[in-house]
Amino acid sequence: MKKFSYDSLKKFTTQVFLEMGCHLEAAEQATDVLLAADLRGIDSHGLARLSSYIRLWENDRINPTPEILVAHETPSTALLDGDRGLGLVVGPAAMRIAIEKAAAVGTGWVAVKNSNHYGIAGYHAMLPLEHDMIGLSMSNASPLVVPTFSKERLLGTNPIAVAFPAEEEADFVADFATTTAAYGKLELLQRSNAKVPSGWLQDANGNASHDPHAISDGGGLLPLGSDREHGSHKGYCLGAMVDIFSAVLSGANYGPWVPPYVTFLEKKNELVGDGIGHFFGALRIDAFRPADEFKSHLDKWIRRFRNAKPITGQDSVLIPGDPERETEKQRRTDGIPLFDSVVSDLNSIAEKFDKKFPT
Amino acid sequence: MKKFSYDSLKKFTTQVFLEMGCHLEAAEQATDVLLAADLRGIDSHGLARLSSYIRLWENDRINPTPEILVAHETPSTALLDGDRGLGLVVGPAAMRIAIEKAAAVGTGWVAVKNSNHYGIAGYHAMLPLEHDMIGLSMSNASPLVVPTFSKERLLGTNPIAVAFPAEEEADFVADFATTTAAYGKLELLQRSNAKVPSGWLQDANGNASHDPHAISDGGGLLPLGSDREHGSHKGYCLGAMVDIFSAVLSGANYGPWVPPYVTFLEKKNELVGDGIGHFFGALRIDAFRPADEFKSHLDKWIRRFRNAKPITGQDSVLIPGDPERETEKQRRTDGIPLFDSVVSDLNSIAEKFDKKFPT
Repeated sequence: MKKFSYDSLKKFTTQVFLEMGCHLEAAEQATDVLLAADLRGIDSHGLARLSSYIRLWENDRINPTPEILVAHETPSTALLDGDRGLGLVVGPAAMRIAIEKAAAVGTGWVAVKNSNHYGIAGYHAMLPLEHDMIGLSMSNASPLVVPTFSKERLLGTNPIAVAFPAEEEADFVADFATTTAAYGKLELLQRSNAKVPSGWLQDANGNASHDPHAISDGGGLLPLGSDREHGSHKGYCLGAMVDIFSAVLSGANYGPWVPPYVTFLEKKNELVGDGIGHFFGALRIDAFRPADEFKSHLDKWIRRFRNAKPITGQDSVLIPGDPERETEKQRRTDGIPLFDSVVSDLNSIAEKFDKKFPT
Repeated sequence: MKKFSYDSLKKFTTQVFLEMGCHLEAAEQATDVLLAADLRGIDSHGLARLSSYIRLWENDRINPTPEILVAHETPSTALLDGDRGLGLVVGPAAMRIAIEKAAAVGTGWVAVKNSNHYGIAGYHAMLPLEHDMIGLSMSNASPLVVPTFSKERLLGTNPIAVAFPAEEEADFVADFATTTAAYGKLELLQRSNAKVPSGWLQDANGNASHDPHAISDGGGLLPLGSDREHGSHKGYCLGAMVDIFSAVLSGANYGPWVPPYVTFLEKKNELVGDGIGHFFGALRIDAFRPADEFKSHLDKWIRRFRNAKPITGQDSVLIPGDPERETEKQRRTDGIPLFDSVVSDLNSIAEKFDKKFPT
């Protein structure tokens, strides 16, 4: 795969968002979120998705200059109307409100409706860290997941991210889809027509499937746990929880009514709310105990886990966030590798806007 | 299994807690939490555990008359010191503070240290429901779980419960251990020396195990997801998140330092905090949108999921909380079945306190 410098990709992506009509600040914010995925190795959620955002914009489902509005609030909460803006812009705006509220009354919680795909959940969860706050972020998404025992797809991969600040150690950052495997992992297998591991997927009839393309043929991703005996009802609960916090609480679309992001799903006729939804939280650590105490204990926690005896064949126990940080460090110096298909996509975008994609 | 009426078990259990030195109100509260597990079919967390609470009390690890103290607070948060009280009493006290704070500023969040086992997580999460609030409850626990790739047990089964109020439908109540299988399920297999399904357990050497007794021989329960390919790093993240919210944030013991509840684990010499920890949240729904709107949309959500086409061999898709409610309804009229070994345990307790266990 060809590699591209972070700076050149940043310049290009900002230009594209400007061409979509975003103001400079919004274009830079959206670029920052999108490229955070490429930097951290979550390739499915970065530039690989740029063409999807453009498609949504062309279909008038993204408003490049939204008036993001606090529709209701209390000292520790807010309901935000994203005005059909990019989730990449609406998300950080919502988290900033959560942070302000946490600064004032200990915690801040913001439910968002009328938004779009917000990139990696972890980006938003990490924003409170520099304020010595814990961050939480979740979002619902296109229905691609079957609840336990269901033949129908009723949930998105509905990610959860949580970030805790450490002192000397790197921060603890967990960010994961509530399915056995993220949709991005399936996309990778689709590119190479590779066999899908058991427990990830079922076909349109509800039978186990190893075909990565079964998903575009009525199949569904399985909740974390894969099957009932291995706790898929818990993954289903988690995905449902994300859906209810993000959308039933905010007034966005939920469950099977979420407007599809992927091209192979038909547009919904019935809507039960506005756009897709997110949910954010910020908790000031010193609203519970002094931040330095918390952070030094988290250091101790992290060191103990990192130094646990590994099972045969593994080097060490990983701390959530470690692999992504390693990847980011490497890609910031060596460049970001992009699949040929993604490069070709980006060149088409460049052409559309009469820009030049870096070589 | 012999069945016992709820009322007779309630009377007996209240007497036992009174004999331990609890005040009447605390004895009744502890009984209510404990029997909620038996009513709801989570047999491992009900009367089957009464002898363990007594053992902890005899070892001076439970204070029957704690002074539960708010050690620190902000408008939306509190840190609670449980003074070595029963988690069955400390937990509801903490959640009541969370509810008061939510009533005042939209949400309330309470971290608890210096507590003990708090029964089923779901009991506490359901307390805010009658106030048109969402409830969240989590707790850390004895280290019986191996993080992904770890040979060592560093986490508890660390449950999460979340409860959302519905209008005409029954409330949505999820309550689950962050492992593939709860420890209680393993205990059931131990009773009958049955084979453990693959993906639940590893032995002391880190190899897959089907022996239900491997856990008392250095083995460990696997995080939800079972192995890396099926997302066990996500279950590990969830268990870690519960541990950090419950204990690193509160000042309780965390990770491998959690004082063991099960008898086969040795008492710790090093402690990193006070007792075990919990974390509670209450969110007032009308701090986001009108409660009747939320509840009628949740009804719609529940009906859509309940009516989803099931896979072959299954009757229907379940809504979290449905099976427990069904069990409770049945047991309130037909009585609560208890294993002979539990009945024998309870008879010994009766003898110890010169009481009579119902027949």
